Amino acid sequence: MTTKPKAVVLLSGGMDSCVTAAMARTTHDVALLHASYGQRTERRERQSFEAMADFWGARQRLLVRLDHLAQIGGSALTDHRIAVPEDGHAIAPAHTAIPITYVPFRNAHLLSVAVSWAEVLGATAVFIGAVAEDSSGYPDCRPEYYRAFQEVVRVGTKPDTRIEIATPVISMKKSEIVQQGIALGAPLHLTWSCYQFEDQACGTCDSCRLRLLAFAQTGHTDPLPYRARVER
Amino acid sequence: MTTKPKAVVLLSGGMDSCVTAAMARTTHDVALLHASYGQRTERRERQSFEAMADFWGARQRLLVRLDHLAQIGGSALTDHRIAVPEDGHAIAPAHTAIPITYVPFRNAHLLSVAVSWAEVLGATAVFIGAVAEDSSGYPDCRPEYYRAFQEVVRVGTKPDTRIEIATPVISMKKSEIVQQGIALGAPLHLTWSCYQFEDQACGTCDSCRLRLLAFAQTGHTDPLPYRARVER
Repeated sequence: MTTKPKAVVLLSGGMDSCVTAAMARTTHDVALLHASYGQRTERRERQSFEAMADFWGARQRLLVRLDHLAQIGGSALTDHRIAVPEDGHAIAPAHTAIPITYVPFRNAHLLSVAVSWAEVLGATAVFIGAVAEDSSGYPDCRPEYYRAFQEVVRVGTKPDTRIEIATPVISMKKSEIVQQGIALGAPLHLTWSCYQFEDQACGTCDSCRLRLLAFAQTGHTDPLPYRARVER
Repeated sequence: MTTKPKAVVLLSGGMDSCVTAAMARTTHDVALLHASYGQRTERRERQSFEAMADFWGARQRLLVRLDHLAQIGGSALTDHRIAVPEDGHAIAPAHTAIPITYVPFRNAHLLSVAVSWAEVLGATAVFIGAVAEDSSGYPDCRPEYYRAFQEVVRVGTKPDTRIEIATPVISMKKSEIVQQGIALGAPLHLTWSCYQFEDQACGTCDSCRLRLLAFAQTGHTDPLPYRARVER
């Protein structure tokens, strides 16, 4: 039996990172990383992280707090004075503006923690479940962003450190992510995607809408409890 | 009277960032940012930050905690089981290895916080006091690192965000930094550089040695209290 190389996987608690972790596990020994940053559904997402880590029997886990993202604010996810949109804006075909749920430069914080941990662990990859096209138009979810960050990792770590930034779902549609997750036996029932609530998903925020639409397109039923299901 | 553009300045409490802030103030309205990350002299560095911010009458200040850097470890600055070197290794002309005081990928965390804050404030620059040649050989203190990070900022922020990563002291020798600081009336007496102690500087760690050498080369006396002064 050969030993798999080690990888750090960013696991938010959501569907995209769950499927990313399931894909990473096929080739790597995974160390699971979760960040809380004062987002509305922080407690529920951390619970999903722990449940998935238990599901996979992950030995190496790291939970970090990035409270400064809430201190800095500027997003509906971290500033409770800004309402989470429920108008379906993000799934409109022609939308181009950056949504108010964008947390300024957030993914750089997540990648920085992952790369620091990977360098100390001797891991050779960092997996992140960013989705470009079918997502909400965040600038830090595009392939060119990860290519640029890869260069920062190359020049900013020790000469003998080699860490690849892996984004296996970045070009997938949400429906393909659901299908991939089901095919790999990923614990989609343990994930959480809602931006607003922690008991039942709202079904009306951008994140719920995109998720429900994806399940509907694959002909599967989303196993999460919803207050309302807007599958269009 | 014209209004200066706004800039976020990373102010660690050390000499290099103090002089960087003094330079930034000549052209920008500065917002001062300080990070604690479980480093040995955390309390003393925060005290220096507050004293400098008071000295300049800075209205906008942000203090953040990056405790995960200590959770992750891998550095003599954050892991108290690893001794801080006192052998003068970093000032030997032929040294090439990365010192054990390197905090893995630390500056990416600092820049990420600064860029997030800058984007929310509408600041057009982030200043960081990295020093390349005359420093301790950290990979994330070189010009190519900041060029790479600049590209991440360009592609990873909102389309109308323009934030320049400014490294005004990166090509200076430590002695030039001391001279520049004195010329600008920077409060060098309020800074702290020692890696080990918080009451009197040790005078023997790499950071103290580089600082004492720089003052000696300029013919000035370092105003800080030292246990020992190794000016060579």
